[in-house]
Amino acid sequence: MDIKTIVNKVNKEIPEFIEGYGEVKPYAGPFATIPEGRKYAPLKAFSKPGDTKLVDSISEAIQKCGLKDGMTISFHHHLRNGDYILNMVMDEIAKLGIKDINIVCSSLTKAHEPLIEHIKSGVVTGIGTSGLRGEIAKEISKHNILGKPVIFRTHGGRARAIEAGEVKIDVAFIAAPACDKMGNMNGSEGKSSFGAMGYPMVDAEYADKVVAITDNLMPFPLKKISIPMTLVDYVVEVESIGDPELIGTGATRMTKNPQELLIAEKASDVLIASGYIQNGFSFQAGSGGSSLAVCKFLKEYMKKNNIKGSFGAGGITSTMVNLLEEGYFEALLDTQTFDSAAAESLRRNPNHIEMSASMYANPHNKACSAHQLDVMILSATEIDTDFNINSLTGSTGMIMGALGGAPDTAAGAKLTVVVAPTMRKRIPIVTDKVTNIVTPGETVDVLVTERGICVNPRRTDLIEKFEAAGIKLKSIEQLKNEVEKLTGTPERVELTDNIVAVIEYRDGTVIDVVKQVKE
Amino acid sequence: MDIKTIVNKVNKEIPEFIEGYGEVKPYAGPFATIPEGRKYAPLKAFSKPGDTKLVDSISEAIQKCGLKDGMTISFHHHLRNGDYILNMVMDEIAKLGIKDINIVCSSLTKAHEPLIEHIKSGVVTGIGTSGLRGEIAKEISKHNILGKPVIFRTHGGRARAIEAGEVKIDVAFIAAPACDKMGNMNGSEGKSSFGAMGYPMVDAEYADKVVAITDNLMPFPLKKISIPMTLVDYVVEVESIGDPELIGTGATRMTKNPQELLIAEKASDVLIASGYIQNGFSFQAGSGGSSLAVCKFLKEYMKKNNIKGSFGAGGITSTMVNLLEEGYFEALLDTQTFDSAAAESLRRNPNHIEMSASMYANPHNKACSAHQLDVMILSATEIDTDFNINSLTGSTGMIMGALGGAPDTAAGAKLTVVVAPTMRKRIPIVTDKVTNIVTPGETVDVLVTERGICVNPRRTDLIEKFEAAGIKLKSIEQLKNEVEKLTGTPERVELTDNIVAVIEYRDGTVIDVVKQVKE
Repeated sequence: MDIKTIVNKVNKEIPEFIEGYGEVKPYAGPFATIPEGRKYAPLKAFSKPGDTKLVDSISEAIQKCGLKDGMTISFHHHLRNGDYILNMVMDEIAKLGIKDINIVCSSLTKAHEPLIEHIKSGVVTGIGTSGLRGEIAKEISKHNILGKPVIFRTHGGRARAIEAGEVKIDVAFIAAPACDKMGNMNGSEGKSSFGAMGYPMVDAEYADKVVAITDNLMPFPLKKISIPMTLVDYVVEVESIGDPELIGTGATRMTKNPQELLIAEKASDVLIASGYIQNGFSFQAGSGGSSLAVCKFLKEYMKKNNIKGSFGAGGITSTMVNLLEEGYFEALLDTQTFDSAAAESLRRNPNHIEMSASMYANPHNKACSAHQLDVMILSATEIDTDFNINSLTGSTGMIMGALGGAPDTAAGAKLTVVVAPTMRKRIPIVTDKVTNIVTPGETVDVLVTERGICVNPRRTDLIEKFEAAGIKLKSIEQLKNEVEKLTGTPERVELTDNIVAVIEYRDGTVIDVVKQVKE
Repeated sequence: MDIKTIVNKVNKEIPEFIEGYGEVKPYAGPFATIPEGRKYAPLKAFSKPGDTKLVDSISEAIQKCGLKDGMTISFHHHLRNGDYILNMVMDEIAKLGIKDINIVCSSLTKAHEPLIEHIKSGVVTGIGTSGLRGEIAKEISKHNILGKPVIFRTHGGRARAIEAGEVKIDVAFIAAPACDKMGNMNGSEGKSSFGAMGYPMVDAEYADKVVAITDNLMPFPLKKISIPMTLVDYVVEVESIGDPELIGTGATRMTKNPQELLIAEKASDVLIASGYIQNGFSFQAGSGGSSLAVCKFLKEYMKKNNIKGSFGAGGITSTMVNLLEEGYFEALLDTQTFDSAAAESLRRNPNHIEMSASMYANPHNKACSAHQLDVMILSATEIDTDFNINSLTGSTGMIMGALGGAPDTAAGAKLTVVVAPTMRKRIPIVTDKVTNIVTPGETVDVLVTERGICVNPRRTDLIEKFEAAGIKLKSIEQLKNEVEKLTGTPERVELTDNIVAVIEYRDGTVIDVVKQVKE
């Protein structure tokens, strides 16, 4: 077969057309895509006095929405490992005999493994998501069970794609920890409270039909409204929408691992020497041990030097909430909340501000929080000598992670610092070529590891500042060689030609594809 | 000239096509229009790090927005008689030599009389508004200075028309009592605080360009966000956006007028006898003496009978705020705030909920507050024996009022009560045919005057209840005849054939036209 390919700006050779995805717009640089024309237009609707939105079951809601073979539905993953909604809805769809459904999720977690059966039975034939882990990821990576590519989008890219009409949602299913009979909802009241509703705020605006699924039907009108009744078609009451205890598992606890703490301390030195940590600076740290531990060291510096930041952003953890409450930041901008203490903060603290995923990171509206960031701390599964980051696949070629908001915030922040150990299970993190590129190197400034700090040569300003501050630097090639002396040169994984996933950059161009792993 | 006409459902004969307006869809009943297709799609945009939105002057903002001859711009009237923004912007537009501008306002007040000169000079050639009073109204009514019809829309109808793309806003100018450098805004902080931002919330979502004009530039990020930065192009800082002291002039004070109090007391008896005043009932009262005084009597009844309402809605006055704070209502839904105490309540009381004009009253989304109302109290300039209400023109034919949310809430509420004196300056209020129909009689249930109470014959259920409660009723014809014995039969005003205004019903159909008064 004669497939024409193109080489994109991160030197990835990609087919011009991918079966099951379509025509490829190659990645051309972080701000190279200037959008034209108009967004997608939501459906006109109609309401009259006496309308009722309450239906008896998820099945009834699905039927009233007119869900049919071939349609696209959406979910959000704020309940993460504790989410019940996706499985409940997919089981009902399967029971109704509906097939060929494209699901567009903000992310998928191990809670969603029953999807495997729905894929195998043809109920689900398309997946868009930010991340994929565990058994579903394995089945996709090894056995290509979907038979066409999963489309990975960043949090900002997903909002953009929905607003642009590249993803047209027929029915959005929304887990609502608090909801009234007309569909006003919030995510921060009730037994299944998870905090901010950043992702479905976008879905609700653009989906043809919107179903709120709640285990906490509150009196009308709900007072804290994250998604208004103007956008909601049906409300279903169920016993439980999920287990909020499983939201934060692991990812958001403060680390005691000495290596992670060492990396965090070095990263903190880098931040301080960069000159960005000044009154009014803004900050985001992903979840993950070293990333969160940076906050601990940063706080000490801020205290000593009487520095107060403007906002902390992103997925919000209780670590960030503590910094807000202790006065180290003026405000938090939150699109996804990572633990119950942070959800409680969103409920009661007016300085803890909920934002949609579009306000968080969509590059194609008139401003986003990601573009206002001074400092961003990221983690990575791999980083290459061009500073390209992989956070989606492992060196095994297996899908095991997510894009999240990393490409969005790296592009936006004045200083993007990657914190990572140099090896995991004797597999080096720094490599010649990452298995897949998720965040392009030109948006990444510094790598901090336990064995040394490397600065992207593009940032001569930072190199000067760090050297002046006495911070020892290594070239990333040097670090790679050092590590490879300990681990040996890693073997390249063998891949087939089958494309099991397309990785979209936040602007909708294709930055990379994931190929099926050869067994 | 052979102009084809049609007779609409309130028996008004209207041309099929109106020059300067276009094709007429005749009013066909309050819920007869089922919309089809999609809403208007906002422009795609683009942002990158380091973008700045602050510009030095209104003139610079106008130029950066690319405002040109023939475009449509929008304003909102939350500052009412104290608004400086419209005049400031129009003066700059005139100075720049831009002509043929269509302005779409949520309403116009006497603060906007400088518009007359801009109309005469050809800077302004189109007006859409909810209301028109004073000199501008006189110039339109008597001299047709615009030369084409003003388009009157209800608050819900304006939101609908913008969302439907019937009104395409090129540039929205928004008065922002609190704004940050990226354009996050609210209306309830700062020296010019006016409260809810219900109208421009819609404009900002759909306008191609959005300019925030503020006299209170706050640190980024603003914490209370009514309109987010995602929708805003430019921010201009000025010395003052208006005089908030002039927001509430007169309209919202509790009356001491004995006749108004008498009408209010009778209206309260009607409400109580209707059976709608029960735990969980919802309520809206327009501004105006009798209307607000109803709250006073209602409160006594609620206290005595231990009744707690669910929500009060609409334009919110301190009278409603007191009812909220004293526990008579659970919540307020607010699209426009009528005094500073109410604005302060919106700022600090989480049970005082801001809503967009679309959530307030747009009939073509998935729910609106107006359709959830149990009881609505309206005032009127005229009411006819079919219970049709005029609140826009006087019996002189002169434009002197507004549509406001009256047609929206009358259609939505289970019980719509009109409170009015039987005559003003010896001109009877009850008449055979109102000069113009704004709110159709089939959505109006009861008229309460100082001389008697009339029930729409359609509401046999209410007639039974009122008679059972010992409330004396009159037929509206009887009341009209009684009053005319005192005032004499009013002379009909002489009108020309020139249409100076089109009155749209909330669904975009034409319910009536206003003709030029013969001098």
